Amino acid sequence: MKPIKGVNIATANCGIKFKNRDDLLLVTFDTEANVAGVFTSSSMPAAPITWCKNNIKHGTAKALIVNAGNANAFTGKAGEVAVFKTAEKISECLPCDTSQIFISSTGVIGEPLKYELITAAIPHLIENLNNDEESWSKASKAIMTTDTKPKFISKTCKILDKDITLTGFAKGSGMIQPNMATMLGYIFCDANISSQALSVILKEINEDSFNAITVDSDQSTNDTVLLFATKASNHAFIDNAHDDNLADFKKALKEIMLHLAKMIVVDGEGATKLIEITVKGAENKIQAKKVAFSIGNSPLVKTAIAGCDPNWGRIVMAVGKSEVASCPETLIVKIGDYQLTQNGAKHPDYNEDAVHEYLKNDKVTITIDLGVHPHEDSKQATIWTCDLNDGNIKINKDYRS
Amino acid sequence: MKPIKGVNIATANCGIKFKNRDDLLLVTFDTEANVAGVFTSSSMPAAPITWCKNNIKHGTAKALIVNAGNANAFTGKAGEVAVFKTAEKISECLPCDTSQIFISSTGVIGEPLKYELITAAIPHLIENLNNDEESWSKASKAIMTTDTKPKFISKTCKILDKDITLTGFAKGSGMIQPNMATMLGYIFCDANISSQALSVILKEINEDSFNAITVDSDQSTNDTVLLFATKASNHAFIDNAHDDNLADFKKALKEIMLHLAKMIVVDGEGATKLIEITVKGAENKIQAKKVAFSIGNSPLVKTAIAGCDPNWGRIVMAVGKSEVASCPETLIVKIGDYQLTQNGAKHPDYNEDAVHEYLKNDKVTITIDLGVHPHEDSKQATIWTCDLNDGNIKINKDYRS
Repeated sequence: MKPIKGVNIATANCGIKFKNRDDLLLVTFDTEANVAGVFTSSSMPAAPITWCKNNIKHGTAKALIVNAGNANAFTGKAGEVAVFKTAEKISECLPCDTSQIFISSTGVIGEPLKYELITAAIPHLIENLNNDEESWSKASKAIMTTDTKPKFISKTCKILDKDITLTGFAKGSGMIQPNMATMLGYIFCDANISSQALSVILKEINEDSFNAITVDSDQSTNDTVLLFATKASNHAFIDNAHDDNLADFKKALKEIMLHLAKMIVVDGEGATKLIEITVKGAENKIQAKKVAFSIGNSPLVKTAIAGCDPNWGRIVMAVGKSEVASCPETLIVKIGDYQLTQNGAKHPDYNEDAVHEYLKNDKVTITIDLGVHPHEDSKQATIWTCDLNDGNIKINKDYRS
Repeated sequence: MKPIKGVNIATANCGIKFKNRDDLLLVTFDTEANVAGVFTSSSMPAAPITWCKNNIKHGTAKALIVNAGNANAFTGKAGEVAVFKTAEKISECLPCDTSQIFISSTGVIGEPLKYELITAAIPHLIENLNNDEESWSKASKAIMTTDTKPKFISKTCKILDKDITLTGFAKGSGMIQPNMATMLGYIFCDANISSQALSVILKEINEDSFNAITVDSDQSTNDTVLLFATKASNHAFIDNAHDDNLADFKKALKEIMLHLAKMIVVDGEGATKLIEITVKGAENKIQAKKVAFSIGNSPLVKTAIAGCDPNWGRIVMAVGKSEVASCPETLIVKIGDYQLTQNGAKHPDYNEDAVHEYLKNDKVTITIDLGVHPHEDSKQATIWTCDLNDGNIKINKDYRS
């Protein structure tokens, strides 16, 4: 992980839930960073989500604080107080305006957050801020809940001949994390791009990365992705998301977000395989994605793949139930390079043994051609999911008991 | 199971898949029965679905044939031929018009159906038609696939002072049955009601029974419910679904359909609990049902209940992701009689141990009051589902391997 100029990091164990590991992360910025964010669309958003959605409008950040072990979701007025007290403490110590402080929480829903543990730790965190590789590594670990490994990546790119560094880390094992809830992702860079432009770019790439994964079809009350730009690389300010000089930056950012998104899927509880599902020939991208998620969220498809069973009839079933226009005659289903269907029936050359062997791989691709519309990028979508295994059930069934 | 006047039944093993058990059911009617049906909304309907949807328009039935072990779904032209050859054989042997023959298949998707095995068995079936209790019992077993037990029920009611008998049987372990696919339900009665009226009544009750259950969120290519009326009770013909004289009949039919629907859920693979979810205070019934299914299809809610874990934050999460208008402040979540939430947070009297004990029951109720609209029947919905256990994964993962 490459440190980003203008960013300072500290982690600590504040005792909210975990023992013997850090569960609190503070990030501060030397100067105001420009910031963009995307958040859960849940109608039951956690208190820090409501807070961040308000602050993101201003577009600048001086600090980010994240706790693991408690989601501060469905905690009523007490949850709002916890967020405000945390922001107030940081704003006093740094100092900065509370509107420049971003807050995330991840963990169990409905339990009051003992914010005093957080506010008590803040002065200590501020004294220990650092920007070396070790601090970044600790940051990616402090936000983990049921994750089995930290998820991070760095990339470099050019904007206007200046070298730009991007580093991102994330946590989560699905749309919602079975034990603790929440997907969180943070990307930092030293580019000098306006928050409006960052927001446009983040939302667009998010649709094809974090918004294109599913582990269990459940959406968290706390999902958050934040993109910070410290401006420390000193290239000429860019305000337009469609500026040609951002091409390399967008490519790097997409690689980062896609990498983190796939890492989350691979770390889905009990998962043994990454499943990539591409749907082509739909009316538009939204319809293609709907079909892809219908397959990717089908427990029957996911258990079949867990068992390396080429039970492709379940894929046809999932296309059929998706409520997207399609018909058997034009539907082509592929697993890997094997074409399974033709003219509304099993392909004459279908070789079940070969597909069974293919399904033993760690990565499996499913390609659907609805055959309803021509092949164009704007009419297709790709999503990622994992298989559904007994391990997932065990983890979720035994939680807290 | 009470035999219905005017109905004849025979079963046989025709060898499509199962050995040592009947896998083929033929039902014939002494005179034309009036018939209504509801079918899967899948865009990949099985060949017998397309056949039945055409025939149901005529409204009369002389025969019903059902095979277990092969769904005849996604079988292209060959599937259509299989259906036609089957109908042709029955129409020759009975004799009757092919438009009066209803056909269902359940089993694996995408495998050609060896219809010759069925047509060869038809003369033998016709020779052995019977209407005793044993035949009805055999009928309910011949259509089973992964079902662990047959599902049937009889009721009596009055129409215009005549005694009416209704008997229904069904198969399935969910929206789709993991191993074999398909929910099938057949209800027979000796009432004298027009097919148009039967259709209106069937569709209405279906919304609150078979269309209000989920095991795994997957919808079959073959789902079918058929309601036959033999007219043998000789009451005055009723053509209007809203005729007051049908009140007792509707009540009995609803009890039958609800009973069969719940039996399907209880028999869901690996299921140990029946979960009843009621959502009140929505804008309308459709919105209420959407929230109920968001909870009932959440793997995280279902695994928590499997583990008797009162992890109600997951219920809040499922309400939040349902895309139905709601807000934390007015949301009331109950498990059994225990109120868990108030004012957007955990209820002050919440007793986790008590709810944990309650969740050890075989039947669990979850009641949601969105608090968005007043309590009225038209603004609420109830659905049924089962818990999600390792057993379900094992059954589906190991299929065919």
